[in-house]
Amino acid sequence: MTKLHLLSPGGFKAGAAHAGLKTTPSPDVAILACDVPATAAAVFTTNKVFAAPITIGRKHVAAGKLRGIVVNSGNANACTGRQGEIDALAMCRLAAGAIGCQAEQILPSSTGIIGRRLPMDKIQRGIALAAGNLGNTVIHADRFAQAILTTDTRRKSAATRFRAGKDWITVAGVCKGSGMIGPRLALNGPSALHATMLAFLTTEAKVPLAQLRRILADAAESSFNAVTVDDHMSTNDTAAILASGLGPALNSRRLIESFAAAMKEVCQSLAYQIAADGEGATKVVRIDVRQAKTPADAKLIARAIANSPLVKCAMNGNDPNWGRIVSAAGLCPAAFDPDKSELKLQDTTVFKSGRPMPFDARRLGKSLASKEVVVELKCGLGKSAATVWTCDLSKDYVTINADYHT
Amino acid sequence: MTKLHLLSPGGFKAGAAHAGLKTTPSPDVAILACDVPATAAAVFTTNKVFAAPITIGRKHVAAGKLRGIVVNSGNANACTGRQGEIDALAMCRLAAGAIGCQAEQILPSSTGIIGRRLPMDKIQRGIALAAGNLGNTVIHADRFAQAILTTDTRRKSAATRFRAGKDWITVAGVCKGSGMIGPRLALNGPSALHATMLAFLTTEAKVPLAQLRRILADAAESSFNAVTVDDHMSTNDTAAILASGLGPALNSRRLIESFAAAMKEVCQSLAYQIAADGEGATKVVRIDVRQAKTPADAKLIARAIANSPLVKCAMNGNDPNWGRIVSAAGLCPAAFDPDKSELKLQDTTVFKSGRPMPFDARRLGKSLASKEVVVELKCGLGKSAATVWTCDLSKDYVTINADYHT
Repeated sequence: MTKLHLLSPGGFKAGAAHAGLKTTPSPDVAILACDVPATAAAVFTTNKVFAAPITIGRKHVAAGKLRGIVVNSGNANACTGRQGEIDALAMCRLAAGAIGCQAEQILPSSTGIIGRRLPMDKIQRGIALAAGNLGNTVIHADRFAQAILTTDTRRKSAATRFRAGKDWITVAGVCKGSGMIGPRLALNGPSALHATMLAFLTTEAKVPLAQLRRILADAAESSFNAVTVDDHMSTNDTAAILASGLGPALNSRRLIESFAAAMKEVCQSLAYQIAADGEGATKVVRIDVRQAKTPADAKLIARAIANSPLVKCAMNGNDPNWGRIVSAAGLCPAAFDPDKSELKLQDTTVFKSGRPMPFDARRLGKSLASKEVVVELKCGLGKSAATVWTCDLSKDYVTINADYHT
Repeated sequence: MTKLHLLSPGGFKAGAAHAGLKTTPSPDVAILACDVPATAAAVFTTNKVFAAPITIGRKHVAAGKLRGIVVNSGNANACTGRQGEIDALAMCRLAAGAIGCQAEQILPSSTGIIGRRLPMDKIQRGIALAAGNLGNTVIHADRFAQAILTTDTRRKSAATRFRAGKDWITVAGVCKGSGMIGPRLALNGPSALHATMLAFLTTEAKVPLAQLRRILADAAESSFNAVTVDDHMSTNDTAAILASGLGPALNSRRLIESFAAAMKEVCQSLAYQIAADGEGATKVVRIDVRQAKTPADAKLIARAIANSPLVKCAMNGNDPNWGRIVSAAGLCPAAFDPDKSELKLQDTTVFKSGRPMPFDARRLGKSLASKEVVVELKCGLGKSAATVWTCDLSKDYVTINADYHT
């Protein structure tokens, strides 16, 4: 089987160009286009400070049909007032003109510096160039994935497929995100600032709109909404899916479940890649909270551990500092009783029933020096579970964010 | 006027000794003793993981009268189970024996490493030595303040006084705290882990217990509960006041108000010193939120800004990155509308009505390179205000917390 990518599902093309918004010579304006009106759903940041493309994007996706996505990096078009909305709409109009549809059928998306007007001359040239090199090869997919990056050190993509009779249904996606990562995406609600996470997904499945929305929201909840680098929800966070409908219909419960599972798999892979490429990160830290009293409690505890600078620094230092983890669990507004809990680091029990357990600190320290660390906390209070992915806090994180200037 | 200190109020003595709990040669066990049963109030951590001395301390302070406080640094006596409680009670018994009172009249307090049993032989020797050098000079006060430190780089103390007829009423205090600082102290509720904040206050005023409790809780709310270094509430956080009653009674509304104001002044000075000595800190950052919809909203917004690693890194780099501040305000669950807000950094307006305002970035950058930075955010939504003190996030913070091993 050839490698699956963003443009494997039938009906999709992408193009990208360097318009000069980023200082690096890589592409910074891109278009994802569908040959037919695609069934579309999107979830956006719930930050009350949100960028102009979020305002416009919410309106455009509301109809449930899109022909494409136009995106730029290097400038977030956030805190740009009414002019920002005019510019975001102009991006849609330019992209629509190039691929032959209405502006309302385009979702605009931006990431980069905030508080500056989009350089519309560059945007216009970039969109024209991107539209001029549309294609559906893996090279086109890779260039699209490259164009949306900001402080990321590498492209992020994922794809999977499952059987639908004689045919296959593919779910594919790309994303970006490295800093200002603490998304709480939702279908509605206030929304988006700057390093931002963006994810764009494609499929050829024929999916009813309501189902697509629900499946995207569910997949986002256990993936993008479960990744944190600095817990700083951005002004521009967006995850969108376009379903071309040129492939099989989800006409059985089994197919719907397979589709939901595929979406979750792709979104979780993308979220994992964001944690792994978090600013200054040397490792991914997976926090598995089990036996919490309620699902909300499980998430609160997992996030409290994932966001503790003390826990993150300990992970950077390969230090099995269980005290920081247990106390982070205890400080959040969730039910927690240390006497009923058990904490494992890399499958080694370090704390149980309110007391530390003996362990080989040197051996565990070595095990913590991995690319992935698993923190498993059993609360002993119920049956709810949550997983959150984060990364360690390194001196490089401080360098990136203290020495970088607006 | 001679310099006021912890032992200036009538009736108090302190002693300290090096018992070998800390690796440095400084004192690590100390006693604060009152000649008479003092009216006493304390607020404790609300972390659901709390140390043995918190369990015992809550019981002992419940009666409203104490003869003294026994405290050690170097070991938090946290996550030590039933044995920890036996040890904390033994500390009280030893101190009580030395100063001639009941164990129940002593508040125990510990800070340092968690999950290890207190070395009771060293504690016993330390308490005997500390009790053997009790005195009420500034040297005794300073040694007490020194004995409670852990990762702190300097002693922290504050005192003030006001007129009560011909006499004076003094309120004095010492504290410690540098990392694991995000206290949410309360009179009751679950409670305390390791670097911890501790504060001990004295006064000679005659104060009814209920009033002392209320005034302490109020003062803590606008001081210790408004300081954050890493937002990591500890297992051992404690603030306690002993009122000897050997001075004037608070028998007028004016005196009660003066006393409350003095308490607030001393507690805020101590909280400020904690922020200034935060792990790796190069400056204090004061977040003033004004015109919020509700007092709870004002606090939520101030804390969201103060705890954002992106904001803290920008402060470390003297970067007027208003976008990080405004988006931090927008991400918390408080009412916020960027179009109605105004943000000032060091009294320079950088953002207003949803848009950036022009400013001299070089000049403002220089101004941010101060020992104190003031961030003032007017929300334009109401009349509520809150102030939170924090510090910047430096590479040194990561060094201290990644390279330090359990």
